[in-house]
Amino acid sequence: MQNSTIVLFFHSPMPPLDVPLNRKLTRKSALRLSVTRTLQKGQQTKQAIVEAALGLASQIGLEGLSIGVLAEATQMSKSGVFAHFGSREELQISVVREYFSRFEQEVFYPALNEPRGLPRVKALFSNWMKRVAVELQSGCIFISGAVEFDDRDGPVRDALADSVQTWLQALNRALQQAKECGHLRPDTNESQMAFEIHGLILALHYEARFLKIHDSIARANRGFDNILARYQ
Amino acid sequence: MQNSTIVLFFHSPMPPLDVPLNRKLTRKSALRLSVTRTLQKGQQTKQAIVEAALGLASQIGLEGLSIGVLAEATQMSKSGVFAHFGSREELQISVVREYFSRFEQEVFYPALNEPRGLPRVKALFSNWMKRVAVELQSGCIFISGAVEFDDRDGPVRDALADSVQTWLQALNRALQQAKECGHLRPDTNESQMAFEIHGLILALHYEARFLKIHDSIARANRGFDNILARYQ
Repeated sequence: MQNSTIVLFFHSPMPPLDVPLNRKLTRKSALRLSVTRTLQKGQQTKQAIVEAALGLASQIGLEGLSIGVLAEATQMSKSGVFAHFGSREELQISVVREYFSRFEQEVFYPALNEPRGLPRVKALFSNWMKRVAVELQSGCIFISGAVEFDDRDGPVRDALADSVQTWLQALNRALQQAKECGHLRPDTNESQMAFEIHGLILALHYEARFLKIHDSIARANRGFDNILARYQ
Repeated sequence: MQNSTIVLFFHSPMPPLDVPLNRKLTRKSALRLSVTRTLQKGQQTKQAIVEAALGLASQIGLEGLSIGVLAEATQMSKSGVFAHFGSREELQISVVREYFSRFEQEVFYPALNEPRGLPRVKALFSNWMKRVAVELQSGCIFISGAVEFDDRDGPVRDALADSVQTWLQALNRALQQAKECGHLRPDTNESQMAFEIHGLILALHYEARFLKIHDSIARANRGFDNILARYQ
């Protein structure tokens, strides 16, 4: 029996391409593969829920998310969604983490391809601007979430604040490197500089998205040049 | 009968101090006074509801306001609140107007006592900072409201956006005057300057209120000095 052949049928809509279908397997390896598949499918489902939650959160806010709302949006049962997250808070935190992970991939990592110093600082700002430009349509969880959670404590607020702090610290480090490289004046206060740059991004989001002022992107870019000129 | 005396009893908890109680009046003047009193009392009640709504809106947002919530907060009947506002939207707009009126009184009007030019610009910023410092505890409707209403049209969004635009235009005018007075360089772009100043206020609110970074007020003040230095 140990070497009997078992034919596996995969129900996952998109099985990974590296495992051929209908492959002949021993029972033991089949069992292992079956468990792996179940876990993978579970991960895929969880990822699909987070994806839907991310889209919803940018429209209705993190506070608008609930197991019920997500069940409706993903056409799953409440208990199905609950099995993946366990609580509304856990769902909200997963969304914050996913949002931050995408932010890192779009804004932070590509800038590491640029040389240390001012080229990297400019790439960070430019990538941040590109992301904000997209979010002028969809909204930004770091901004709307700050308004939702600025008057309460708890793990969701902490996850959100930690993400923003991590990003601002990365910006600070890049500015510090630019100072070390001699691209910025030795008396540059990089925390001050990061604060002023953060202000430009917030003003862009506010004036373009809420007030619908069309040249806000140009103003933010000009503001960045003004800040750099002061510290060079 | 025309000159018969009528004794009026005021039920308002705080009658104005300029009219003595139990004053003897003619019927005609008594009727006029009675109508005035009713209107005044109506105004007082409406004002008390707006006051309660303003406090609530800074905690739960403009979107959290409803006739029902206000009735509970003011211990009035829903129909009583409804009699003064007629709709949730009208209530929200009244709150925006009241908020703006206070903003004007605290930030804008006192600055008019300063001479035109840089002294007035500095007073506007300083008064704005004082107000934001208070709102680090209570929240700011111009900021939270922008997040609530940035993805929808309608009279509440318009009232909110008009208020902020009016304020930003006043700031722009003060900067323009400073340029005309020769306090700022002739090539100063006052819209750009106002955008950058707005960014400082938004960064202060975000970093102090949400991230709880303690030296944000100093950073905003330093940022303002940096902006001024660039354009002088």
